Amino acid sequence: MSVPYSLEELTIGGKGSEQKASDKIPFIARPFVSERAKKTLDIVEKFVEEECIPADTVYQQQVGTSKQERWSAHPPIMDDLKKRAKELGIWNMFLPKNHFKEGAGFSNLEYGLMAEFLGKSTTASEATNCAAPDTGNMEVFAKYGTQEQKDRWLKPLLAGEIRSAFLMTEPEVASSDATNIALTITKEGDEYVLNGQKWWSSGAGDSRCQVYIVMGKSDPKNSNVYKQQSVIFVPFDTPGITIHRMLSVMGFDDAPHGHGHITFNNVRVPAANICLGEGRGFEVIQGRLGPGRIHHAMRSIGAAEKALEFFLARMNDPRKKPFGKQLYEHGVMLDRVAHSRIEIDASRLQVLNAAIMIDSKDAKFALKEIAEAKILVPDMLLKVLDRAMQAYGGAGVSQDTPLANMWAHGRTMRIVDGPDEVHAMQLGRNENKRGEYCLKKIEWQKKRAVEMAESYGMKKMDPLQLDREWSKVHDGKGNVDKAKL
Amino acid sequence: MSVPYSLEELTIGGKGSEQKASDKIPFIARPFVSERAKKTLDIVEKFVEEECIPADTVYQQQVGTSKQERWSAHPPIMDDLKKRAKELGIWNMFLPKNHFKEGAGFSNLEYGLMAEFLGKSTTASEATNCAAPDTGNMEVFAKYGTQEQKDRWLKPLLAGEIRSAFLMTEPEVASSDATNIALTITKEGDEYVLNGQKWWSSGAGDSRCQVYIVMGKSDPKNSNVYKQQSVIFVPFDTPGITIHRMLSVMGFDDAPHGHGHITFNNVRVPAANICLGEGRGFEVIQGRLGPGRIHHAMRSIGAAEKALEFFLARMNDPRKKPFGKQLYEHGVMLDRVAHSRIEIDASRLQVLNAAIMIDSKDAKFALKEIAEAKILVPDMLLKVLDRAMQAYGGAGVSQDTPLANMWAHGRTMRIVDGPDEVHAMQLGRNENKRGEYCLKKIEWQKKRAVEMAESYGMKKMDPLQLDREWSKVHDGKGNVDKAKL
Amino acid sequence: MSVPYSLEELTIGGKGSEQKASDKIPFIARPFVSERAKKTLDIVEKFVEEECIPADTVYQQQVGTSKQERWSAHPPIMDDLKKRAKELGIWNMFLPKNHFKEGAGFSNLEYGLMAEFLGKSTTASEATNCAAPDTGNMEVFAKYGTQEQKDRWLKPLLAGEIRSAFLMTEPEVASSDATNIALTITKEGDEYVLNGQKWWSSGAGDSRCQVYIVMGKSDPKNSNVYKQQSVIFVPFDTPGITIHRMLSVMGFDDAPHGHGHITFNNVRVPAANICLGEGRGFEVIQGRLGPGRIHHAMRSIGAAEKALEFFLARMNDPRKKPFGKQLYEHGVMLDRVAHSRIEIDASRLQVLNAAIMIDSKDAKFALKEIAEAKILVPDMLLKVLDRAMQAYGGAGVSQDTPLANMWAHGRTMRIVDGPDEVHAMQLGRNENKRGEYCLKKIEWQKKRAVEMAESYGMKKMDPLQLDREWSKVHDGKGNVDKAKL
Amino acid sequence: MSVPYSLEELTIGGKGSEQKASDKIPFIARPFVSERAKKTLDIVEKFVEEECIPADTVYQQQVGTSKQERWSAHPPIMDDLKKRAKELGIWNMFLPKNHFKEGAGFSNLEYGLMAEFLGKSTTASEATNCAAPDTGNMEVFAKYGTQEQKDRWLKPLLAGEIRSAFLMTEPEVASSDATNIALTITKEGDEYVLNGQKWWSSGAGDSRCQVYIVMGKSDPKNSNVYKQQSVIFVPFDTPGITIHRMLSVMGFDDAPHGHGHITFNNVRVPAANICLGEGRGFEVIQGRLGPGRIHHAMRSIGAAEKALEFFLARMNDPRKKPFGKQLYEHGVMLDRVAHSRIEIDASRLQVLNAAIMIDSKDAKFALKEIAEAKILVPDMLLKVLDRAMQAYGGAGVSQDTPLANMWAHGRTMRIVDGPDEVHAMQLGRNENKRGEYCLKKIEWQKKRAVEMAESYGMKKMDPLQLDREWSKVHDGKGNVDKAKL
Repeated sequence: MSVPYSLEELTIGGKGSEQKASDKIPFIARPFVSERAKKTLDIVEKFVEEECIPADTVYQQQVGTSKQERWSAHPPIMDDLKKRAKELGIWNMFLPKNHFKEGAGFSNLEYGLMAEFLGKSTTASEATNCAAPDTGNMEVFAKYGTQEQKDRWLKPLLAGEIRSAFLMTEPEVASSDATNIALTITKEGDEYVLNGQKWWSSGAGDSRCQVYIVMGKSDPKNSNVYKQQSVIFVPFDTPGITIHRMLSVMGFDDAPHGHGHITFNNVRVPAANICLGEGRGFEVIQGRLGPGRIHHAMRSIGAAEKALEFFLARMNDPRKKPFGKQLYEHGVMLDRVAHSRIEIDASRLQVLNAAIMIDSKDAKFALKEIAEAKILVPDMLLKVLDRAMQAYGGAGVSQDTPLANMWAHGRTMRIVDGPDEVHAMQLGRNENKRGEYCLKKIEWQKKRAVEMAESYGMKKMDPLQLDREWSKVHDGKGNVDKAKL
Repeated sequence: MSVPYSLEELTIGGKGSEQKASDKIPFIARPFVSERAKKTLDIVEKFVEEECIPADTVYQQQVGTSKQERWSAHPPIMDDLKKRAKELGIWNMFLPKNHFKEGAGFSNLEYGLMAEFLGKSTTASEATNCAAPDTGNMEVFAKYGTQEQKDRWLKPLLAGEIRSAFLMTEPEVASSDATNIALTITKEGDEYVLNGQKWWSSGAGDSRCQVYIVMGKSDPKNSNVYKQQSVIFVPFDTPGITIHRMLSVMGFDDAPHGHGHITFNNVRVPAANICLGEGRGFEVIQGRLGPGRIHHAMRSIGAAEKALEFFLARMNDPRKKPFGKQLYEHGVMLDRVAHSRIEIDASRLQVLNAAIMIDSKDAKFALKEIAEAKILVPDMLLKVLDRAMQAYGGAGVSQDTPLANMWAHGRTMRIVDGPDEVHAMQLGRNENKRGEYCLKKIEWQKKRAVEMAESYGMKKMDPLQLDREWSKVHDGKGNVDKAKL
Repeated sequence: MSVPYSLEELTIGGKGSEQKASDKIPFIARPFVSERAKKTLDIVEKFVEEECIPADTVYQQQVGTSKQERWSAHPPIMDDLKKRAKELGIWNMFLPKNHFKEGAGFSNLEYGLMAEFLGKSTTASEATNCAAPDTGNMEVFAKYGTQEQKDRWLKPLLAGEIRSAFLMTEPEVASSDATNIALTITKEGDEYVLNGQKWWSSGAGDSRCQVYIVMGKSDPKNSNVYKQQSVIFVPFDTPGITIHRMLSVMGFDDAPHGHGHITFNNVRVPAANICLGEGRGFEVIQGRLGPGRIHHAMRSIGAAEKALEFFLARMNDPRKKPFGKQLYEHGVMLDRVAHSRIEIDASRLQVLNAAIMIDSKDAKFALKEIAEAKILVPDMLLKVLDRAMQAYGGAGVSQDTPLANMWAHGRTMRIVDGPDEVHAMQLGRNENKRGEYCLKKIEWQKKRAVEMAESYGMKKMDPLQLDREWSKVHDGKGNVDKAKL
Repeated sequence: MSVPYSLEELTIGGKGSEQKASDKIPFIARPFVSERAKKTLDIVEKFVEEECIPADTVYQQQVGTSKQERWSAHPPIMDDLKKRAKELGIWNMFLPKNHFKEGAGFSNLEYGLMAEFLGKSTTASEATNCAAPDTGNMEVFAKYGTQEQKDRWLKPLLAGEIRSAFLMTEPEVASSDATNIALTITKEGDEYVLNGQKWWSSGAGDSRCQVYIVMGKSDPKNSNVYKQQSVIFVPFDTPGITIHRMLSVMGFDDAPHGHGHITFNNVRVPAANICLGEGRGFEVIQGRLGPGRIHHAMRSIGAAEKALEFFLARMNDPRKKPFGKQLYEHGVMLDRVAHSRIEIDASRLQVLNAAIMIDSKDAKFALKEIAEAKILVPDMLLKVLDRAMQAYGGAGVSQDTPLANMWAHGRTMRIVDGPDEVHAMQLGRNENKRGEYCLKKIEWQKKRAVEMAESYGMKKMDPLQLDREWSKVHDGKGNVDKAKL
């Protein structure tokens, strides 16, 4: 795939020519970004805008249209993009330097800035080997895997040769509360036997997906519900596993990646496949989810930026002049652009601050900030997308813009890794821990005010104080003795 | 005024004890804050929470209830607070170190962090000599004043001995567009003669207010509307000036500070009182408004934090158990706390980022970011306040909590220094400058996709492409030749 | 007070001349409105627009400014307005014809249409003897009073000679849940002794207020919490009653009417003053609240219409041209006008539908619809007001428009008679009763679909069904046997 | 297709058993509904709930999965449903009795109530021959068609034997403003020649679609832009017509109905095919759109009711207990149910009121009310759907509930027949016509207030009036002569 000419020609000298990615890093985040990261960021931007975004539609076409084609597709353009990304040195940027030696040596913040650009394309994350769920899965293998497991799965994952899935959510329970997860993992001899079903197993449709990381109940009677669950590695071709069907998202099947509904019928794996140890499932998923949420959030920021670019493009399309004015001459449209700009910028800072906290310690330390970003960003993205869609009219909901697909994907962000409501409830409870202190402080301040008033020889009182006995100032006919008021 | 005991007793060891202000600085902002600023910040917090907030109600009481009392009041507690603030070394923190030698030597960011705490009290800003409009006015004198003007007005202002007002807005025009300002400033000999009226002249009610900085039209025929306006210094007692009446804000008169409606009838001032030069009014106000918006925004963040503290206190008030549960057991309430937390935190980052940009260069450089904060913050504040008010029921709208007064003040923040809509329009237009580039880029990417598809031997096509002539595949009776589809 | 000329001159022939009130009744409500009501409605409109609205500011001025004046005021213009209303035959329209012989003979719907206009003025409701809380209190006396009580209190109330208050809410408990009400009503001989405190006792400030209808706990140990409360009539000048202070609403004291905080210290009233009987407090308040909420809601609709009129007036004020265009040329403003129009119209229909249901049976029958209106209307009103305020800038929050005062009053509508959240919770629970049925129905429909599919020889299946065992179709290297998919 | 058992068994006696449709008609609308319509309404409800909703999934399955299948499908279940609907006497209910003799004899209001139920199913509208765009097209033929045209197209349309499409929107212009429509209709001899392209030609994919009603420019130079457009009837198989491709809606292709992108290349039709006459295109579409918008709106109300039923079902699903509580025990969920209930009910009244106005005269008479419903209803529907989707988590966005498809369809309702913004702008402008009157009235009322004040011997004044000359009351040192204030 040659790149005969580039976007730069467009940017040089023209009105509205754009700054490079590294020049647009928010000022407040700059002390945290190395020169090397800035250079890489600019390469990522160029790769995404010039190669991945055009490739997005080619990839879709290569996936095909029939069910058979779609679920066995392996679009050749993806291999070319991967090759190119490796040449450009933009590969595995997601593994943070302070915890993993296997990655490209960036911090969560630095990768976050890159992930924003990856989020503008449907192919870019996979092309740079930074696509979920492989990213989180690689972290699990790198952190908790044995050498053998690393050789078998982590190595080819890091090389982008195979893919993986994370199987947690289940259709028959409220799995937004992970203690409800019900698939059984029962020890029999030196094997574990799995029975149950999983859905929203993202990536399970891919013909290169070779391993499932499965969460399930190994000790259902443990009095500590957080110790009932284990995580185990399961090869995709273990007998007893059936991919029952694929789930659609707002009408999109997301092939060939897809979201599987998978049944486990006496699926047997070696006991050695257990991850970290029996009953330690919660430990594994908690370590996994934090940075992943930041990645999702930053990609969503990028999606929002792309939506705004489409909005702006439409506003300036000379063919579109309803009522004799271009859209940018309609005040309602400018107002929506402005609010989109504000909401995107505020959300980005929120995510970057969370990323810096993870970098400074770990994801647990940034629990509150991650939850804030997790709730704030998808809500923002959907609003920005909706405005852009509306500006496009019919084109905005159709295949002629990427907006509808982005909306569908963005909508799931309010659900994946726990629905907004669960995070808000936990955030609310956490904040409420301050309640007793606030109550005491306010009471203290009131008492202090009374003392202060007394020190000035005043009674602490309300300006609307009356302390009148009506019967003494009021004659019953509407006449009042004003002096006594 | 003695301080016999302190809030610290409350914070030590107790459940929900709070971190110090310097420990709560967002991680992303920390590289920009000096150790000295952190120490000062903690002193400001302690002063506000322990002395100013209790003083707020005492101050209100000392203002009195009748019109005569209210508009001549000079509450003694304010002088005591000022004395105390000077002792603590927290005075004039608002003057940024990179532009003014007269201030306390902090950056806009550092002062912003302090202003958050000042915003939790109605007395704290004046007590530390950081109250609007004096702050902006002192900047004007320091930047543009002659030595004589500085001696006469800047010196006593910096010492907190007199106050000042900024007279810009007018009742008879749409002064959200400053080119409409109509008060005339006419040169006659070595004097300027002012005729017209001003309103929302905040601070003009104060009995110590000695100088008005007045904007008006000196050259109404100048073809450049931005050169028609001048700014001039006017002593409060110049003959011809009448304070016609005071304006209320949602029912509050804000005495003794107040918001004056002032008429000018042949008011004569020496020509030397012109600021910076005739026709340079826009220059003066533009320099003045930027940092002021950041101050307002950060104080609003503090107000929102205070509202949230009141909300949390109410949630934990053991006397308030509707339907057998305390408010914190009601999910709707926790959800609102969570969203308040998120919105406050995102807004703060937005303001701090703008402050850092001002510090790195100047307010013009941060034009976009200041406008974003200007719009985002008051909207957030009003939402947080509204939720807190609702949790309190009747108490929330009454004098028993500071919430109603904070709401009234917060509501004006969507209007002062230009209504939201004007800022959004400008932000939208500014963003729209990118439109042409976005349009070109998207078109380029589409063409590039076609080339890519061709390089794979594919026609670039839509998966829902049909290109069928119905007459050839359709027999008119509902039967279709599928092969031709 | 003469009426030398009228608004009609304005309406005749001019562009934008308005229809009469009776011509603006929503079509869907017309079958329910008698000709007599239509005529009265037009008289009410004319009275409000031509006499009451101008009188509003005169009334405010007659109330005075000092605390002494304000809490003893009895503005003479009110007596003149009342006289005039009686002459016009618009008096006591609120008492519905199907339940009370004492009223003017209109239905709740018909009065609702009139109440809309009363809501545009601060004096009109009292001027026509349709002001809360007297309206609800008169209903209580008419329904449950003895002849003696009627002679003593109902008669002068119906004549507009005295006023009354309803004392329910308390500061020390969560009285949004009325079972928490704590003031004690203890029988001692042939007297009841009251101890406790009440607040938000609206109307208690009026110098003509002669009777309090008080709710309290007479049987605190009753196992049925709904039988613990009683309602009792208490003359205002009974020894032991102190009006402790008046509460402000967003800075407004609402004098001379006011909202009292009242303490009861061994207040003794004859046993005969009990209303309906001991333990029947809930019965009394439930009968009282339904129509009252409709009255509030319809007045709020009128307030919203007035806000929109102010908005429209501002949009067309030739003096106000920011950026060279009048406000009506700014798209954002037109958009807000449109949404205001929509929201007002939808809300009105909701209230009228509830009124018709009350008319057709009683308030209990319209429980759901009243709650819907109770929540919907204030939210709408505040939105419309906020837009109008914003269009006015500073004038919108000041005394120069009635908007700020209307907002303050509107804000309390989300709290009085129970906060929104309580009504929403009950509405949600009520709706949830259908949940089990819905669940069963949806399951039945799914089963039915399977049967139908079978009747066509089809297996009921999902179009994304796969049922593939990966190990059999997949070679582990990314190659898939398509035939088996 | 047999109906062996019915939903009634479910409704009898059970907790939460539902009222019949005719019992749920809002009280305010009842005077407008005949007994015959009530009976038909109950039949429609039963047909939809028991036969159509189960058939929806069977229909989907019969459409198939490959492109070839989907675009030639003619699902047999549809013919069975149609047969059944005819047996039940529920056929062509949409043609209003006051304008068309061909219909079932109901008013717009009566049909509106039925359309609500049709909107709960994807098959019901077509099954009862009440599906867009055929409904509007039949109105066009009935109103404006020649006898020959009626015989050829109206007759089989009324019998449900063929289908039709309405071709108006175009991809290359801003066709939200219909004056921009650009397809040319040029007279050559006794033929018209069409050149151009159309998209969003809904129904064009159906293999039984035999006629296109096409709008285009016949007189591009007419100085009156509203006379440039004509409407013409075009047989589907006229040479030169190519269905270029089908458009997707948020990922759904809506096969076999579909939304076509169609090109016209020298398409020749007899001159007699012109509708109503050359240059009368606007007349045709204006007559057509009004009732159609009411139909869409009422179907959307039904969709919202269905979404709420799904929400309620989920809340009561015993398998779904996050954090130990069923969803109906979570306050946030109940709150959302309540707000959904309120918003649905208010929207329905708005639509019914518009329908009654059309019935009382015509669509032009109800212009404002139709626009209000057009904007209000889809916004409400999307909110209700979003809440239901969120309650379902992953299932809510997948094929396991109808919610995602309903959302996609609902989203287009903010665009079809003109985007919200266009309707809001027109509504705003229309309302603004009152502006001048409002301005005059408010000014009159102010003057009147001054006269009134004078009649009481008062100066009309502001309570915050001061009129003080500071220099006379103020000594410059903060001391004020109170007596002069």
